[in-house]
Amino acid sequence: MSSRLLDLARKFNVFYLNGFERNVCKPFVVNGYQVGLIRPDVFNELLKYPEVFFIRDVLKHDNSSETIVELNPAYRDYSERTENVDLVLRDMMTKGLFSAALKGWRNECYEVMNTSNVSLLKMDRSATSLFGIRNFGVEINGYIKHPTKGLCIWLQHRSSTKQTWPDKWDNMVSGGVSVGYGIKETAIKEAAEEASIPESLAQKIVSAGCVSFFFESDRGLFPNTEFVFDLELPLDFIPFNTDGEVQGFELLPAADCVERVFSPDFKTTSCPVIIDFLIRHGYISPENETKFTDVVELLHVPLCNLFTYSRQAKTIENGEQNGQK
Amino acid sequence: MSSRLLDLARKFNVFYLNGFERNVCKPFVVNGYQVGLIRPDVFNELLKYPEVFFIRDVLKHDNSSETIVELNPAYRDYSERTENVDLVLRDMMTKGLFSAALKGWRNECYEVMNTSNVSLLKMDRSATSLFGIRNFGVEINGYIKHPTKGLCIWLQHRSSTKQTWPDKWDNMVSGGVSVGYGIKETAIKEAAEEASIPESLAQKIVSAGCVSFFFESDRGLFPNTEFVFDLELPLDFIPFNTDGEVQGFELLPAADCVERVFSPDFKTTSCPVIIDFLIRHGYISPENETKFTDVVELLHVPLCNLFTYSRQAKTIENGEQNGQK
Repeated sequence: MSSRLLDLARKFNVFYLNGFERNVCKPFVVNGYQVGLIRPDVFNELLKYPEVFFIRDVLKHDNSSETIVELNPAYRDYSERTENVDLVLRDMMTKGLFSAALKGWRNECYEVMNTSNVSLLKMDRSATSLFGIRNFGVEINGYIKHPTKGLCIWLQHRSSTKQTWPDKWDNMVSGGVSVGYGIKETAIKEAAEEASIPESLAQKIVSAGCVSFFFESDRGLFPNTEFVFDLELPLDFIPFNTDGEVQGFELLPAADCVERVFSPDFKTTSCPVIIDFLIRHGYISPENETKFTDVVELLHVPLCNLFTYSRQAKTIENGEQNGQK
Repeated sequence: MSSRLLDLARKFNVFYLNGFERNVCKPFVVNGYQVGLIRPDVFNELLKYPEVFFIRDVLKHDNSSETIVELNPAYRDYSERTENVDLVLRDMMTKGLFSAALKGWRNECYEVMNTSNVSLLKMDRSATSLFGIRNFGVEINGYIKHPTKGLCIWLQHRSSTKQTWPDKWDNMVSGGVSVGYGIKETAIKEAAEEASIPESLAQKIVSAGCVSFFFESDRGLFPNTEFVFDLELPLDFIPFNTDGEVQGFELLPAADCVERVFSPDFKTTSCPVIIDFLIRHGYISPENETKFTDVVELLHVPLCNLFTYSRQAKTIENGEQNGQK
């Protein structure tokens, strides 16, 4: 049985389903923790900064060997790691490398955390996809309960001048969790910036879970987790944008939303959140979706278990000082 | 940071997190499809039925070898497969084998399906855990919006005479999807049987997703998926049981439910559904749960990708006729 929804879930999980099998990406290790994955094109450029990035072969638990990229373990702290990586990235930008990702440089940093949520360094958000760093964002599903049309959902039409996904349809409000902001705080901030939702109304957002998926594009790797909030809006509320990032909003009945998600004009990496919303509210169900369980599982892929390099792995050759094999 | 919730999610995923690594279970293959996993204790008994279960060594894609258990591929159809497996199971029962599982024999069958949802055979539900067959169930979260106490949830207290999980706390309504019943249909049927919910009220259940987890106990392996429904009940509705499977029901405010889930008196394999409910309704959120994303991912483990034996695998020795190495 074919399923458009499963095909879409496979699309935003293209790296989860195929990328690991290619087995060409190298773990990126900071202070003993794997925090990302590095594609061959990026790996080849990092070789040119052997004082910052060390290349090591290590033994895995099953005694096979694995090449890892390790941030110089001599860096003493968060600041020193952040500064040295930043210098490399700025040098790459100057050389015009990885422009699909780095042309989006925005002087807005994401935290690079270990599995205990301790920040090891921060990195400009445009560069995290080059290192396959886990990204955490927030998204708000804005909806109304219309007296005759039933559940209707506000969608955002992204500006044609946006650096990423210009002109695409998107969820009402979304944003990355940046350094220094909490999760609910970020959602309320973005609600004001993107859709002019007053704080008194935005405070009514209800946490509803999260979605996790692993996408890949020409910009790099995206192991993304989006914290999901639902917000029931007054019938007469109309979102509007003032910062120029949005060209408009549209209110769609739930059934039309299901169709809109399949449009090539919907931002691929925003599909998981709206699909999750439509599932949680009963509009996509086992009665109308043959691949229901597969789709739900692909909205929550186990990113927490994917980065498996452990600091116990043994180095099998002495390549640490010059960082090259 | 420690997290009671993550510890609990690890408990109902004990096989997902540890069982695969032990690497002692063998794929169970029917008509070219892997439909389950077989533990060593069961494997050793199946060796005694070489005309029914063939043991083969196959080459995997990475050229390592793997031992599989294959149901005799000469069986022509659903009926022939069902009958032959049933004969083996009844013989094991007579011998008193695997009594933790088979003492629960109830003449109620689950379908054993391939990945395209085609049924290959049916098997008594008490026996599916011996073969690690995926189980599909339904669960209904019954709740009210109390004018002063807020969201309150009805829990079920299982009878002390139940074959499995006697005396434990459970979700209001649950049941396995049996042969011949649809998913929503099963939920409505169970709502009547377990909690005397009239059909007119039960028709108001709203599909809200599914949870997937992989548990293990002395009864065997449980790769389970539960289809989740929410049902808002009238304030004055009181569920009651007539079939003797339930000793009572209790209405608990959401905050008390969060605590009840951690009690050893809560049925372990019912925890995912109530945790998912509390997450979807904002009572467990990233603001109060440090391991929020890990927990959500462990409520939806990728069972759809776990059974990876493919019919393309090549046999590497001629052990098919006598089923033994």
